[in-house]
Amino acid sequence: MKVRRTKTANRILETSLDLFNRFGEPNVAPATIAAALGMSTGNLYYHYPSKAELINTLLDDYVQSIGQVLPAASDIQSVEDTWFFLHTLFELIDAYRFLYRDMSDLLSKDRQLERQIKSLIAKKNSAFEATLHGLVRHHVMRIDGFDAKSVATCMTVLITYWLSYEYVKNPRQALEPEHAQATLLQGAFHVLNLLSPYLMDESREHLRALSKAYL
Amino acid sequence: MKVRRTKTANRILETSLDLFNRFGEPNVAPATIAAALGMSTGNLYYHYPSKAELINTLLDDYVQSIGQVLPAASDIQSVEDTWFFLHTLFELIDAYRFLYRDMSDLLSKDRQLERQIKSLIAKKNSAFEATLHGLVRHHVMRIDGFDAKSVATCMTVLITYWLSYEYVKNPRQALEPEHAQATLLQGAFHVLNLLSPYLMDESREHLRALSKAYL
Repeated sequence: MKVRRTKTANRILETSLDLFNRFGEPNVAPATIAAALGMSTGNLYYHYPSKAELINTLLDDYVQSIGQVLPAASDIQSVEDTWFFLHTLFELIDAYRFLYRDMSDLLSKDRQLERQIKSLIAKKNSAFEATLHGLVRHHVMRIDGFDAKSVATCMTVLITYWLSYEYVKNPRQALEPEHAQATLLQGAFHVLNLLSPYLMDESREHLRALSKAYL
Repeated sequence: MKVRRTKTANRILETSLDLFNRFGEPNVAPATIAAALGMSTGNLYYHYPSKAELINTLLDDYVQSIGQVLPAASDIQSVEDTWFFLHTLFELIDAYRFLYRDMSDLLSKDRQLERQIKSLIAKKNSAFEATLHGLVRHHVMRIDGFDAKSVATCMTVLITYWLSYEYVKNPRQALEPEHAQATLLQGAFHVLNLLSPYLMDESREHLRALSKAYL
């Protein structure tokens, strides 16, 4: 349930998210956030008594947003639906990319975060299993239970770490706004292409055409 | 070229690697390393003037070890060769797992590290492309160039982030020695299973039997 927030609390959250995403959470001090907002650190602490509280609030928002997207997995009937679903997930991940950039480090600091990220990963994994079931049910692909479990796991790892991978390959540019869109499309393509060999011929050709149009 | 090191320098490196792996590099201070070795911090700094130098030396060792393993990719002729190759890579990654646990954070601190990790990822990716070519050349699998590029990328992301994924799913246990072996086998299996749909029937059945025996 979204808590009703004051205008100032919202501005603090938006600015923190922006700074964390651009510079990495460990490199942004509360004083930097306050300065960017033109307020005193004291005023910032009045709304959010600690950086941990800011991070947890942003994580709550992210978990809530993604919780609204994941159930769509069970309605997936086609390659196009899957592409749209993946793309929506990637855009959300991008909007909160600081969580992914330093996930291990964030986890080591906070138990609440640990529980939430763990449950989020489990939910993503179930959503991908549901996606595969949907595609099988609608005769779009053929895959047995053993491979479906492995493919869903690989989809989860790929979607979770794609931005980290792009960041490691190109730390100075990959996550800058002008590259972000290309990065996301590449990621969505590779996740989707994991399904390619299991698709029926027609859908596989459709996927290939889709990929060539987007990349 | 491996530099000849004093016995003490070697002990310092081994202990640092062990502590970084167990507790995460950001949580291990030079004083902790010195204490674990029963030496003064001054003596430690005499051998390694900074923590950055320790990290860079360990990274050099890792890059050198992995550089000796990767060329084997071009001799791969079978599913069994691929399994062995992946398993060797995973064991090396496990031996230096602190590099993978906080990679984004490490990268943001050091340019040398940034260049080395970037080039390492490119080399891993080429090795996986060579693996796929070898398997095609030996009539073990069938895959076109478009899919081969995507599969090699997915293999690279999976092998690079598998330990981070297991860590995030289970921060208190996944990387402890008693779980490490199972974690590595799972990772190697999922990477290998990316090839499964492209394998010829006989090799695919062989892979399935192999997976069931190991997991």
